[in-house]
Amino acid sequence: MSEPFWKTAISKVEPNKILVRGYNLMDLVGKYNYAQLTYLLWKGELPSPRESRMMDALLTVCLEHSLNAPSVDAARFVASSGVPLQAAVSAGVAAIGEWHGGAVEQAAKMLQDGVKKMKESGLSSDQIAEETLQEYSKRREKISGYGHPTHTDDPRTRKLLEIAKETQLMGLHVELAQSIESFTEKFLGKHLIMNVDGCIAAIISDMAFDWRLGKGFFIVSRVPGLVAHAYEQMYFDKPYKAPSWNEIVYTGTPERRAPT
Amino acid sequence: MSEPFWKTAISKVEPNKILVRGYNLMDLVGKYNYAQLTYLLWKGELPSPRESRMMDALLTVCLEHSLNAPSVDAARFVASSGVPLQAAVSAGVAAIGEWHGGAVEQAAKMLQDGVKKMKESGLSSDQIAEETLQEYSKRREKISGYGHPTHTDDPRTRKLLEIAKETQLMGLHVELAQSIESFTEKFLGKHLIMNVDGCIAAIISDMAFDWRLGKGFFIVSRVPGLVAHAYEQMYFDKPYKAPSWNEIVYTGTPERRAPT
Amino acid sequence: MSEPFWKTAISKVEPNKILVRGYNLMDLVGKYNYAQLTYLLWKGELPSPRESRMMDALLTVCLEHSLNAPSVDAARFVASSGVPLQAAVSAGVAAIGEWHGGAVEQAAKMLQDGVKKMKESGLSSDQIAEETLQEYSKRREKISGYGHPTHTDDPRTRKLLEIAKETQLMGLHVELAQSIESFTEKFLGKHLIMNVDGCIAAIISDMAFDWRLGKGFFIVSRVPGLVAHAYEQMYFDKPYKAPSWNEIVYTGTPERRAPT
Amino acid sequence: MSEPFWKTAISKVEPNKILVRGYNLMDLVGKYNYAQLTYLLWKGELPSPRESRMMDALLTVCLEHSLNAPSVDAARFVASSGVPLQAAVSAGVAAIGEWHGGAVEQAAKMLQDGVKKMKESGLSSDQIAEETLQEYSKRREKISGYGHPTHTDDPRTRKLLEIAKETQLMGLHVELAQSIESFTEKFLGKHLIMNVDGCIAAIISDMAFDWRLGKGFFIVSRVPGLVAHAYEQMYFDKPYKAPSWNEIVYTGTPERRAPT
Repeated sequence: MSEPFWKTAISKVEPNKILVRGYNLMDLVGKYNYAQLTYLLWKGELPSPRESRMMDALLTVCLEHSLNAPSVDAARFVASSGVPLQAAVSAGVAAIGEWHGGAVEQAAKMLQDGVKKMKESGLSSDQIAEETLQEYSKRREKISGYGHPTHTDDPRTRKLLEIAKETQLMGLHVELAQSIESFTEKFLGKHLIMNVDGCIAAIISDMAFDWRLGKGFFIVSRVPGLVAHAYEQMYFDKPYKAPSWNEIVYTGTPERRAPT
Repeated sequence: MSEPFWKTAISKVEPNKILVRGYNLMDLVGKYNYAQLTYLLWKGELPSPRESRMMDALLTVCLEHSLNAPSVDAARFVASSGVPLQAAVSAGVAAIGEWHGGAVEQAAKMLQDGVKKMKESGLSSDQIAEETLQEYSKRREKISGYGHPTHTDDPRTRKLLEIAKETQLMGLHVELAQSIESFTEKFLGKHLIMNVDGCIAAIISDMAFDWRLGKGFFIVSRVPGLVAHAYEQMYFDKPYKAPSWNEIVYTGTPERRAPT
Repeated sequence: MSEPFWKTAISKVEPNKILVRGYNLMDLVGKYNYAQLTYLLWKGELPSPRESRMMDALLTVCLEHSLNAPSVDAARFVASSGVPLQAAVSAGVAAIGEWHGGAVEQAAKMLQDGVKKMKESGLSSDQIAEETLQEYSKRREKISGYGHPTHTDDPRTRKLLEIAKETQLMGLHVELAQSIESFTEKFLGKHLIMNVDGCIAAIISDMAFDWRLGKGFFIVSRVPGLVAHAYEQMYFDKPYKAPSWNEIVYTGTPERRAPT
Repeated sequence: MSEPFWKTAISKVEPNKILVRGYNLMDLVGKYNYAQLTYLLWKGELPSPRESRMMDALLTVCLEHSLNAPSVDAARFVASSGVPLQAAVSAGVAAIGEWHGGAVEQAAKMLQDGVKKMKESGLSSDQIAEETLQEYSKRREKISGYGHPTHTDDPRTRKLLEIAKETQLMGLHVELAQSIESFTEKFLGKHLIMNVDGCIAAIISDMAFDWRLGKGFFIVSRVPGLVAHAYEQMYFDKPYKAPSWNEIVYTGTPERRAPT
């Protein structure tokens, strides 16, 4: 109980002064951009120019996916109910779960575990990929970061890999992620493309981010879009968004009498 | 700053003992039901038998409205994303806004202001109703608690009024609410029925609840349904609920080239 | 894709009519109370009188725990920020996680798995309890539903067991839960009491509820309190609740110069 | 009802293609940074270099404020409860209300109304400032965007004004905001500094943003910090954050007997 109740290593506020990871925030604003300062917040250090470029791509590549995303739909239903903007955005963020953006977290864990095994065992990325997929196949578990309901060749994955190559931020994690993609057909019965969640997972792992920060990338990249959708719903669409009663299929117990 | 940071008048916890509004919670459980203890929490005193009966009706009459409610839809989209149950329920609660259940708050305020004016001025409920509607008409503002997109004669309003009559918990606020309904056509150009939000607002006002607690009634009554819908979506429906890309109508700027 | 997008087995709305699990809601209101209708929503059938009594106890026994609960604290910080009531309640609900009320879910799963094993193997509850604790001890994992930071003998557990006995709704799950309590010292090095989450888990399992609905009980029981706390914070306390800058201990990188 | 249920002007998804405001997102990633693409999402057009620089400053200047912010505290209590990262961030976003960051919205509305009046009436910014403050003083209402509990000279305001001057993005709204600051003592009895919310409000108004998007700036700028705090709480602090029972001051009804 001698531990202080209020403590943090992230920042320090004093009257007229704000330190972030040791730097005076006012010495950074105007010199470093949003992606660079997000890197500082999460890593504790400022990024190099190559890392800065990669960071910006990671935080913008999945900026928007229209209403074809549960988080955006959730935000719009809430926005239609007569609430302040932040309430709708908040509901959208709550939907960044394991099947939607949150897959970055599990995919990054799988890749970080895999690369650790590569290093300890001396096995190749192909060998670890086969081993990993065998386990998923055996457990009949969905593999995070592969497959997409809309895209057959996720353009975001291509773009990120292009920039990762250019900035030389590709390493063993991307290598393993690509091996896994190439073996999906053999082990899961169907070729699954590396989707943008899987690709973000691979690159942030090569940039030495903790997998437990994985969802942060998707959350940050979707928030400006959630704001735009909440605003559009609130001011340029009808209130009380909901399907009409006669569009809803009732699959339950037929009408019956209440006991008397 | 001498004010304590952590303070409350609601309850007190000690090892092996929990007081709620002064009563030992263990002396109440098994004797008083959920609606009665909710009354205790919000009013500070236990309800009489008549108030207990009314309270239960107020908290169950809008138990469910299927997917024809933005809160339920929001909860289901979040539930489909791979999140724990409480995250989906939380998003549903966030949607209890001014146009959806939250109308109880504004309607109760309007009625409490109106009855106060009746008492101060000696005017009748009809006179105050006309005055009130004139102001809404002039400000071209939507009136909370009247009109419904689905129901032409809200069965919940009827049921609540029946029980309010039986328990003798109808007073000036219900009278004013009914006057307002009868004048909607004259002032707003269209007959608007008193909906369940308006009726809850009137009855809780006659029960002397602060209008600022109005949303609480709707929130509590919808939470069991939000739990049921989240559960149904998570375990008996497909993950990643979202309209397909080709069902979404794009109304924005046509495709254009990025500047080079 | 022939599956309807909007479908549910919970309820059906038509103009002026609402069916819940097949019953006309208006035939139930005034006859069945909140706990009984929650049972109907979750189970699909109305409860017997004994089940009704137990249900009410389950939904009221953890009504309040003052500010000594992260969900209440979260709700109060949000409530102090200038938001509508439902936004604060929503944040409180989001905090019903694995270490706070949400433990009901995992505890119920453990007990339902255990009783299934008892039935399949013919082993006694003590034998299954020992086996279960051995696994937790080996995996060095926290066991859900046991131990409490404040209560050394959780009065809520006692009260629930008393009512479960009286209503004859105690069965193998409660038996197993008690066996586990009696062996905690042997396997985990410290006697851990069955806390209220563990007890709710045991009783709802004996009532044949799916463990995946476990969190629902805690959520419903805490919502009236979250409403009361949000209301108290919004109207009877200061806005912008936060520790002052000089009460926060900074544990991060010492002040340093930004690169030029 | 001929209106499509799913429609948006923000973006369009097709298999392997994502358009944002008409541009192929893949042509923008790597060329435009996060702040620029946020501008595109909200304004519909790409920013000029001067606007880009200003946008980045607006989105980073209130990046962090340690635990001295209700949103961060709310996020940390939720994070301590055993939930996924996004649930904690979601609760933090919900707290960006009128008294915390959300003030940008009301302040921007006030300034946009004021400048409209300046243009219509030919009155000076000082005259409109006096008129505005007189109204606040008469209504005894808190003025959004002025005053700060910690900073006596908000360093973020200074920094933003410096960059706004440099990028020539200062206009009548900033002028009016400064006039208002200079008259606070005369009308409100106490000098209130223009805080960062007020300054963001003034600059985005001079950049022709709709005031109803005001909260978006604060939300986006705080999300990376909310992620960092949730992560720190989840993995480097104790679970179940809450004050101990004996630190909570009970101000309610003294202990009493339940009726029998």
